[in-house]
Amino acid sequence: MKAARFYGPGDIRIDDIPEPAVRPGTVKVEVEWCGICGTDLHEYLDGPIFAPAADAPHPITGETVPITLGHEFAGIVHEVGEGVTDVHVGDRVVVEPYIICGHCDACRQGKYNVCATLGFVGLSGYGGGFSQFVVAGRRWIHALGDLDTDVGALIEPLAVAYHAVRLSGAKPGHSALVFGAGPIGLVTTAGLRAFGVDDIIVVEPAEVRKAKAGPAGADHIIDPTSTDVVGEVMELTKGRGADVAFECAGIDQVLKAAIQSTRVGGTCVNVAIWGHEASVAMNDLVFREVNLLGSLAYAGDHPATIEMVASGKVDPHQFITGRIELDDIVKNGFDELMNNKEENVKILVKP
Amino acid sequence: MKAARFYGPGDIRIDDIPEPAVRPGTVKVEVEWCGICGTDLHEYLDGPIFAPAADAPHPITGETVPITLGHEFAGIVHEVGEGVTDVHVGDRVVVEPYIICGHCDACRQGKYNVCATLGFVGLSGYGGGFSQFVVAGRRWIHALGDLDTDVGALIEPLAVAYHAVRLSGAKPGHSALVFGAGPIGLVTTAGLRAFGVDDIIVVEPAEVRKAKAGPAGADHIIDPTSTDVVGEVMELTKGRGADVAFECAGIDQVLKAAIQSTRVGGTCVNVAIWGHEASVAMNDLVFREVNLLGSLAYAGDHPATIEMVASGKVDPHQFITGRIELDDIVKNGFDELMNNKEENVKILVKP
Repeated sequence: MKAARFYGPGDIRIDDIPEPAVRPGTVKVEVEWCGICGTDLHEYLDGPIFAPAADAPHPITGETVPITLGHEFAGIVHEVGEGVTDVHVGDRVVVEPYIICGHCDACRQGKYNVCATLGFVGLSGYGGGFSQFVVAGRRWIHALGDLDTDVGALIEPLAVAYHAVRLSGAKPGHSALVFGAGPIGLVTTAGLRAFGVDDIIVVEPAEVRKAKAGPAGADHIIDPTSTDVVGEVMELTKGRGADVAFECAGIDQVLKAAIQSTRVGGTCVNVAIWGHEASVAMNDLVFREVNLLGSLAYAGDHPATIEMVASGKVDPHQFITGRIELDDIVKNGFDELMNNKEENVKILVKP
Repeated sequence: MKAARFYGPGDIRIDDIPEPAVRPGTVKVEVEWCGICGTDLHEYLDGPIFAPAADAPHPITGETVPITLGHEFAGIVHEVGEGVTDVHVGDRVVVEPYIICGHCDACRQGKYNVCATLGFVGLSGYGGGFSQFVVAGRRWIHALGDLDTDVGALIEPLAVAYHAVRLSGAKPGHSALVFGAGPIGLVTTAGLRAFGVDDIIVVEPAEVRKAKAGPAGADHIIDPTSTDVVGEVMELTKGRGADVAFECAGIDQVLKAAIQSTRVGGTCVNVAIWGHEASVAMNDLVFREVNLLGSLAYAGDHPATIEMVASGKVDPHQFITGRIELDDIVKNGFDELMNNKEENVKILVKP
């Protein structure tokens, strides 16, 4: 079968590789749609980052580059392994793309998203969504019900948002602040709306992204290049600040503004992955007793995320800005995202 | 009456000032004992920091230096103002030394410890415990019952610890980690023990302080100059890390070790006030979903703190390392603390 594999910076190739075989307890899924994630783009530009380098095999998969990419995928069940009785050929499903040890402290707590040897299908081995078939353990298969598989491919980024909003403790009546209207900022905005948050402020400089924030659920959009963000947030929240804030950028000044804009006793969730150590004014946390929380991916959030979409609380179609074939993934996928980063939210690939 | 007043760096004088008069709704307390806090020492060395400088009166008190110091005090009710019916002359009491606006968002939330214009009796005006009498509003007066006033003077630092431990969510069965066995680290250790935490690790390099950590409640003491702290904590906690960690130092490397030693999904409480921006590896928060929380002073914690001492869960006598007269406060108090910082925990002053 064809698969888009990552070899090194700027080097993704369409290879012909063997189809994976179903094993007892696993499900073989024919991928219909797989989204390109910012993480995939980082690998393409500067990797291997998450992908295991040639001299550092992933501790669970034992694999190294070349690695098949793609972890935001949904498809149709093609075959089920021995012992799998509650998933059936023809079901529409999304795969929660984890590779975990199952026995570290995090896994035992149910926080397998922070497993000590965490890996992802589509980044660390065991295939990926930018290929025709993926085989995954039964526990990672979630039924989409009546949802289409293009929408299904958006469940993964929406689960990231669902998890972050859940950790924040956001509730109806709260005000929320999202820094950045890139893909994660937009799905977080949509997630906040689904959680019943009434007053959502998005901070974003790029015009084309600002235009997407309103439909995603933003009540107010602040341009940080022309407005004092902290002052404006205080103005919009009657001097209180936002009950919950989300840092989706990984930039010192953004984190600082996020903390300073968070309400006394409120929660600032860091969703970004950082490329450097941040300079943090700790006294901003102390003198306002703000809670700074790290949020990574999702754990146990897929069923509720699917329900959130199925019930119509979030319409993922707004986030699909392109549909391409696997053969065109470099030119019309990765290079397109690099050249027109702000215009695109999610480009879906059909393997 | 005599009062120890702060004028500027290295300049504390024993002045003769008028006695404060009781007003309706207030209580006049004759101070029996008042502890010297690290904050007082910072003012003496580098102030004015919290104390209002000559050109920056405190927004509520309107006062500037010279300021009477002392906020860790207890004494005997000397007189009660009109309308005060539930506090009586002769009662032993501790004063919660706040000056707050009462109407900002923090005050409305009951988090008056982070009031937007927060001040402290003994730092911002309205007198202080290093004088014979203090007048404070009824709401700030807490009955000591049978407790002596020397122990009563320790209620304030113990309330700081009670608040931080309460915010951390520490519970019986948890493991806890305290960085620093100075006064705040020691009372935090004692507070954790009172909360029923079973496994308390204290990190401290100074021999004389290490010797105090055991009696305060530490099960294990790690010397960071000779031991890899994170590795040793992981060893002691069966590879998990501490459920709750307390940063009582305000040092980048300590904060880093505290975060890295906190269990997946656990809470790291920053109790320290910082003199600079910290360099924080945000990914350490993200990839282990650690919660970094700022804790400041106390709010509503005095009654439970008094009960914690009255019930014998904490014996504050161990923290009293000196008793001096007001006239000797500079030589035997501030200079003694500066010259023999590690030997001393709490020096009590009798005005």
